[in-house]
Amino acid sequence: MRFVILPPPQAGVLPAAAPSFTGAAPVSDNLASDDSVSESNLPQLRLKPGRQFPFLSRHPWVHAHALVTDGAELQIGQAVDLVDMDGNFLARGLVNPNSRLRVRLYSYDSRTEIGEALWKERIDAAIARRRLTGTFDPQGAERLVFSESDLISGLIVDRYADSLGVQFTAGALMNWRQAILEHLRHSCDARQIVVRVDEKTAKYEGVEPESGTLEIDTAPDSEPVAYRQNDLDLTVDLVGGQKTGGYLDQRANHAAAAGYLVGRRVLDVCCYTGGFGLVAAKRGASEIVGIDSSAPAIAAAQASAQRNGLSDRMRFEQGDCFDLLKRMKGEGQTFDAVVLDPPRFAGSRHQVDQALRAYRRLNRSAVELLPVGGILVTCSCSGRVSRSDFLNMLVEVGRRCERDIIVLENRGPSPDHPLAVGCPESDYLKCVIAQVM
Amino acid sequence: MRFVILPPPQAGVLPAAAPSFTGAAPVSDNLASDDSVSESNLPQLRLKPGRQFPFLSRHPWVHAHALVTDGAELQIGQAVDLVDMDGNFLARGLVNPNSRLRVRLYSYDSRTEIGEALWKERIDAAIARRRLTGTFDPQGAERLVFSESDLISGLIVDRYADSLGVQFTAGALMNWRQAILEHLRHSCDARQIVVRVDEKTAKYEGVEPESGTLEIDTAPDSEPVAYRQNDLDLTVDLVGGQKTGGYLDQRANHAAAAGYLVGRRVLDVCCYTGGFGLVAAKRGASEIVGIDSSAPAIAAAQASAQRNGLSDRMRFEQGDCFDLLKRMKGEGQTFDAVVLDPPRFAGSRHQVDQALRAYRRLNRSAVELLPVGGILVTCSCSGRVSRSDFLNMLVEVGRRCERDIIVLENRGPSPDHPLAVGCPESDYLKCVIAQVM
Repeated sequence: MRFVILPPPQAGVLPAAAPSFTGAAPVSDNLASDDSVSESNLPQLRLKPGRQFPFLSRHPWVHAHALVTDGAELQIGQAVDLVDMDGNFLARGLVNPNSRLRVRLYSYDSRTEIGEALWKERIDAAIARRRLTGTFDPQGAERLVFSESDLISGLIVDRYADSLGVQFTAGALMNWRQAILEHLRHSCDARQIVVRVDEKTAKYEGVEPESGTLEIDTAPDSEPVAYRQNDLDLTVDLVGGQKTGGYLDQRANHAAAAGYLVGRRVLDVCCYTGGFGLVAAKRGASEIVGIDSSAPAIAAAQASAQRNGLSDRMRFEQGDCFDLLKRMKGEGQTFDAVVLDPPRFAGSRHQVDQALRAYRRLNRSAVELLPVGGILVTCSCSGRVSRSDFLNMLVEVGRRCERDIIVLENRGPSPDHPLAVGCPESDYLKCVIAQVM
Repeated sequence: MRFVILPPPQAGVLPAAAPSFTGAAPVSDNLASDDSVSESNLPQLRLKPGRQFPFLSRHPWVHAHALVTDGAELQIGQAVDLVDMDGNFLARGLVNPNSRLRVRLYSYDSRTEIGEALWKERIDAAIARRRLTGTFDPQGAERLVFSESDLISGLIVDRYADSLGVQFTAGALMNWRQAILEHLRHSCDARQIVVRVDEKTAKYEGVEPESGTLEIDTAPDSEPVAYRQNDLDLTVDLVGGQKTGGYLDQRANHAAAAGYLVGRRVLDVCCYTGGFGLVAAKRGASEIVGIDSSAPAIAAAQASAQRNGLSDRMRFEQGDCFDLLKRMKGEGQTFDAVVLDPPRFAGSRHQVDQALRAYRRLNRSAVELLPVGGILVTCSCSGRVSRSDFLNMLVEVGRRCERDIIVLENRGPSPDHPLAVGCPESDYLKCVIAQVM
């Protein structure tokens, strides 16, 4: 399952310095900090010396280790003020004494009150952000709220036609659960709302997991929800959690890649439930060979191929992708195009080198199956692997394979997965479309 | 004029280490180098110890300083073999004894012969690369050959309808001028080919500048060429060099940005000949205020607005953009959206800090004119400023303005401006579409 996009907070992965897209030297010039001392009656959590910089840059995560008074005695969901060593107001957020990510910040203005009105305003703004270009497909799917990126750390809302899947990834936010769900229902005229709290979140946030609670359902049953994406008929089982279609964050990349795959024989590596392959087949790829280690995922991909009348040009093989690529190379197979959309290789910053080695190996294996002029679509959803790291990995692959790799498109996620610059950790998805000479 | 995209080679800007998208530690593990000693009879240029890494990674530029035997006595355009300290073949290229960029490499395979057949093959491959998605608009414009990115360092070919603008940026390549132009004419069925060698190139490469030589013209006159781009009627005067329309590299960004600008009042900063503003006005922006320091550019923008029936919703002001932004802020003006597409701020790596300060100042001024929810379209065509640097600059702007900047799209150039991963210097254009809260 790749349902959670943002990794749950873990010790050691939170930024000690100012947020940065490079991991380079933190911003350390001494800006005059906001001198306004908060006049709220909220508990104040005080930062250790020199730990204020991320929050001047509007980073929303406060690690318990950064705090002198760490709020361990407070109730989960209590609103608190974050102050610097001298007691100057920095930001306001919600505390979770169970979590090492002790405070999630929601405002850097001491006049903002945290509560129902703020959530409504932020949710409305997030939905309005999806309408900026005037696009809305009632039968389609989209991410309506994307946590930190929409300034609501801990809330993810996906819309599939008239149903909503809501994920809480912050225990503290669940105090407002009913108000948030009610507002979502009204704003979206939702028929069905399914709430999920995944195991990892539950563990790190000290709350109960939920596998898909049907919170609001005005219809008599809760069948899988049907929706349209990239001209495909797909379904999602919000209650059971089984996902059988393209991922929302990749959907524009699926479409962009498919444009390069018309008439081509495509190897879809880590095809999972068929994301890239289904769209490519629909747009006219001559043949898709999907490989993945998960048998249930392949079964779902096959069902989607069947539903969309694409079974004749799609076949699947289950097994370890590295092994299968090696075997194919040994057999002298080639493909006109290879798509690589592996799961997250680097969950923490300590795994980056290891992840880059895995990406290098995988991409090298793919390049070796391509003739001169072949297409490589290569993705990374490891937020810890930067875009430059990923491109540098391709330099390395070109060197080792003695091939020229020419990048045609260097893409990110769909615009409904935006990025608040104050939280660079949300910049996770890379999708490179290249030609290999 | 922003006609030359790739900066001409200058001392001190060439990579001493392996190519990298970060400027991070060079790849320094000792790969077994290709042991095949070249059996060609070409002159051999020998690298200094430890200078071979960029070329193992297929970087195409050899600086004279990196060479022991530097070929200063050779004829311009002579094919040479690049060898390491031990005489092992690394790559093959063309020498230019007049230039500090002494050798441009065209192959890393000792079996490749440099000559007419290679140029034809590379040009054909470059054109085929533009047809990978099956798109071709005979009335449109596109970059057909993009120098290093298409493995032909020193050749840029733009097509405007049935006319070609050819720029030579490598003196050494001009030995094959006629063969290249003939092949282009046949491949593209071109009515007109205009050759340009700009002043900077001429100076650095030790050749004569050309201001737009009409090389091939089967038509009786050489009027400005009309072409269509983003539903606009535009013209380009290939001979005179006057450009009066959208830039090719930005054309997909013009269209993407316009989607966010419908019904909005837009300030188009450094509007030059109207690139972003014209497309936005055409797609339904309510008003465009274009500002630029160049009076001729504004005149061209006005002419384009007139030609496309957009004059009623576009007005222009000439002056220094920083000054005008300051004045507008002083007057309490606001806009629904601000577009920033300034000229290149950093020409060399020594100017990066200064450029980032200028970007920060410019972006901050723009953000201060935006209400909550306003749209910021912000670009950088400084190759030396990395994408992470640019995003980090926005973090800084958010901090100083105390605003949240939410990136909706993090874009590069159109796919006809690809990027060979071996030459990261070609990764120059950033276009970020964001909402400012």
